[in-house]
Amino acid sequence: MKIYNNPPPSEWASLTKRPLTNHDDLVDSVNTIIKDVKLNGDDALIKYAKKYDDAELDSLAVSTNVIEAAADKVSRELKQAIQLAYNNITKFHSTQLVDEEIIETMPGVKCWRKSVAIQKVGLYIPGGSAPLFSTVLMLGIPALIAGCSEIVLCTPPNKKGLIDSSILYAANLVGIKKIYKVGGAQAIAAMTFGTTTIPAVYKIFGPGNQYVTKAKEILQLQGVAIDMPAGPSELLVVADTSCNPKFVAADLLSQAEHGVDSQVILLSDSAEVINSCLSEIDIQIQYLPRQSIALEALRQSKSIVFDTINDAFNFSNIYAPEHLIIASANASIYVDKIINAGSVFLGNYSCESAGDYASGTNHTLPTNGNAKSYSGVSVDSFVKKITFQEITDKGIMNIGRAIEVMAEAEGLMGHKNAVTIRLNEK
Amino acid sequence: MKIYNNPPPSEWASLTKRPLTNHDDLVDSVNTIIKDVKLNGDDALIKYAKKYDDAELDSLAVSTNVIEAAADKVSRELKQAIQLAYNNITKFHSTQLVDEEIIETMPGVKCWRKSVAIQKVGLYIPGGSAPLFSTVLMLGIPALIAGCSEIVLCTPPNKKGLIDSSILYAANLVGIKKIYKVGGAQAIAAMTFGTTTIPAVYKIFGPGNQYVTKAKEILQLQGVAIDMPAGPSELLVVADTSCNPKFVAADLLSQAEHGVDSQVILLSDSAEVINSCLSEIDIQIQYLPRQSIALEALRQSKSIVFDTINDAFNFSNIYAPEHLIIASANASIYVDKIINAGSVFLGNYSCESAGDYASGTNHTLPTNGNAKSYSGVSVDSFVKKITFQEITDKGIMNIGRAIEVMAEAEGLMGHKNAVTIRLNEK
Repeated sequence: MKIYNNPPPSEWASLTKRPLTNHDDLVDSVNTIIKDVKLNGDDALIKYAKKYDDAELDSLAVSTNVIEAAADKVSRELKQAIQLAYNNITKFHSTQLVDEEIIETMPGVKCWRKSVAIQKVGLYIPGGSAPLFSTVLMLGIPALIAGCSEIVLCTPPNKKGLIDSSILYAANLVGIKKIYKVGGAQAIAAMTFGTTTIPAVYKIFGPGNQYVTKAKEILQLQGVAIDMPAGPSELLVVADTSCNPKFVAADLLSQAEHGVDSQVILLSDSAEVINSCLSEIDIQIQYLPRQSIALEALRQSKSIVFDTINDAFNFSNIYAPEHLIIASANASIYVDKIINAGSVFLGNYSCESAGDYASGTNHTLPTNGNAKSYSGVSVDSFVKKITFQEITDKGIMNIGRAIEVMAEAEGLMGHKNAVTIRLNEK
Repeated sequence: MKIYNNPPPSEWASLTKRPLTNHDDLVDSVNTIIKDVKLNGDDALIKYAKKYDDAELDSLAVSTNVIEAAADKVSRELKQAIQLAYNNITKFHSTQLVDEEIIETMPGVKCWRKSVAIQKVGLYIPGGSAPLFSTVLMLGIPALIAGCSEIVLCTPPNKKGLIDSSILYAANLVGIKKIYKVGGAQAIAAMTFGTTTIPAVYKIFGPGNQYVTKAKEILQLQGVAIDMPAGPSELLVVADTSCNPKFVAADLLSQAEHGVDSQVILLSDSAEVINSCLSEIDIQIQYLPRQSIALEALRQSKSIVFDTINDAFNFSNIYAPEHLIIASANASIYVDKIINAGSVFLGNYSCESAGDYASGTNHTLPTNGNAKSYSGVSVDSFVKKITFQEITDKGIMNIGRAIEVMAEAEGLMGHKNAVTIRLNEK
């Protein structure tokens, strides 16, 4: 980890920049896949399963029997852990669905919003080295709470053409029955256009590799909504002298092991704190199975000593991290300094992995500086808020003249007339 | 208006399709403008003002004096109307900013969300034939309520290099001081990258022509967020026998006068109702100044008679209209049938123009079927909801084992270790 000592604000912009992750070179191959899926549907999906997942598939759908049998292959301890996470995530997300009050803006003019579930949603769960059943919970539970009537899940099969049991178990727990063995850009295309087997959806959620990300980017211009732009995962820790350097090191490493492109930043107002944390990293990293990945990620990471903790928070707000840990015994006094972040972990015992799995908050969060303008996934992401208004014959008398005057000033006499004709009827 | 009689559901998909409004041919010219603004900043903007707005500009910013003097040029009646709209929009939108409760998902594990304003936002207000001061209110008021610290407004100048007084007046009322004479794709590029005069923002809002829309589409892939995808404005009316055909005709015409590409759809379970409404359109259209635009829009519009009112709502949900009027004396009984719509107007006295201007709801709404997955603009659009969690030393004892088990099952031992090291400290 490179250490910077109190860099002047003029250097902050470049220090907060992420490495370029532009995959424009992928556009052609992703577009080819998209066109193929649009044209050839299931046949294309079975072909790509062979090509990219090395899997011979007879059918794309996972049968109900297979979904239900998965429970037998998941250990009792893991089932209990998943249940605890399920309960906490459900408890937190349930409070996000609210009935909004009816506002009478003027006598006879009532306005309100109603949250209505997005009917058809698609969840993409990456395959690869680890089965991300936690993401099934993080996307499936808010979809369930929102009341989405059709939830489709795509995830790539392994070489035997199978889906990991823990993913199937988590999906079944959430009530997802439509599970398909499709990965990559082809999965995003299938959920956008629909195929004989896979239903088209209105909004697609979930992380993925650069092919998946590029496909979501391209297809959101063709009518499907997506959760948010994606980028490599990030953690920024602000540590003061009341932190526990062992804990900080463990948290930084938990982020670094995600991938070689993971972003890890450590800020403090104490050089000693930084040195202690870095020494701890050197010790702890030796025991990590994913040591080489973590080492590579740390090589691009930064530790910065600032004169004041205030400067550290100013820097953090410019960086706008996906995950922000306040490693301090007095974390709550810093809350109001936080302007841009995806999810914040307060105090020495709030580790990022708690939020990744089981505390109750969502782990699908804005990366790459998008925390300046995007929220993480929540029940909000699975509903539209439709506005309603009900104006009575008396209400239009109260509001009508103002509308006529404004419509005329904008040169829209048809708009004006829609009011005039009602006022004249009285 | 073409009349369809009870089309079978197999034809609904094609009947709900919008005419193609793909402006891919614009990509090259918009990209040229974007690159020019990124490279040459203010100079490029002044050049394009000359080229596209026929305006010679000395400076891009509107001075405080000019902004404040605008009030003298707005009639007292229009000021009163704007004030009434301002009050209603503020009253309705103020209720959208809520303090969310802290949820203790398990003893010692607290989670909550905090709404924090997007610091820097950009509002685009189109120029052209009419000054859309109403859109200044619809975007500026929620930005003000959210607490955005920097609100930038771009709008094209007229040939004299001036901005309409009503736009300046509305902006000043909302407290917007940063107003720039820039239109088109160049305005979107300026607010994305920033220039010497114009600040860069994190999210851009507002309607516009195909150049503006294409620029928002392209630039959202380069780090700036946008409100939603844009398309021509739409109105769908479901009218039963208790409607007032004069009112329905006036509402359909108010939509048709927007532009030749406006979408107008009338559904009913009564052929008589449809005939009466169309006869009324023929009468009322004669008196409209924008008659030729409305005629052109109506040529592409559809009236459909269904066997049942239920079919009409099923069709409407597939169409997913931006504006939906329930023209019925008993509109409230239909509310639960509405699944996909931007804003809904209930009953014979709730005309669309009320929502366009002054009832309190927002008029920036999803078009082109996007109401299936997008909400209209609200205070939500101007904030991020940051999640927080605070886990105590006792809390990690309650939740720690579950995290360890799940992290290990996903093969992420660094994630596990961040918990283990805390549990072992106890």
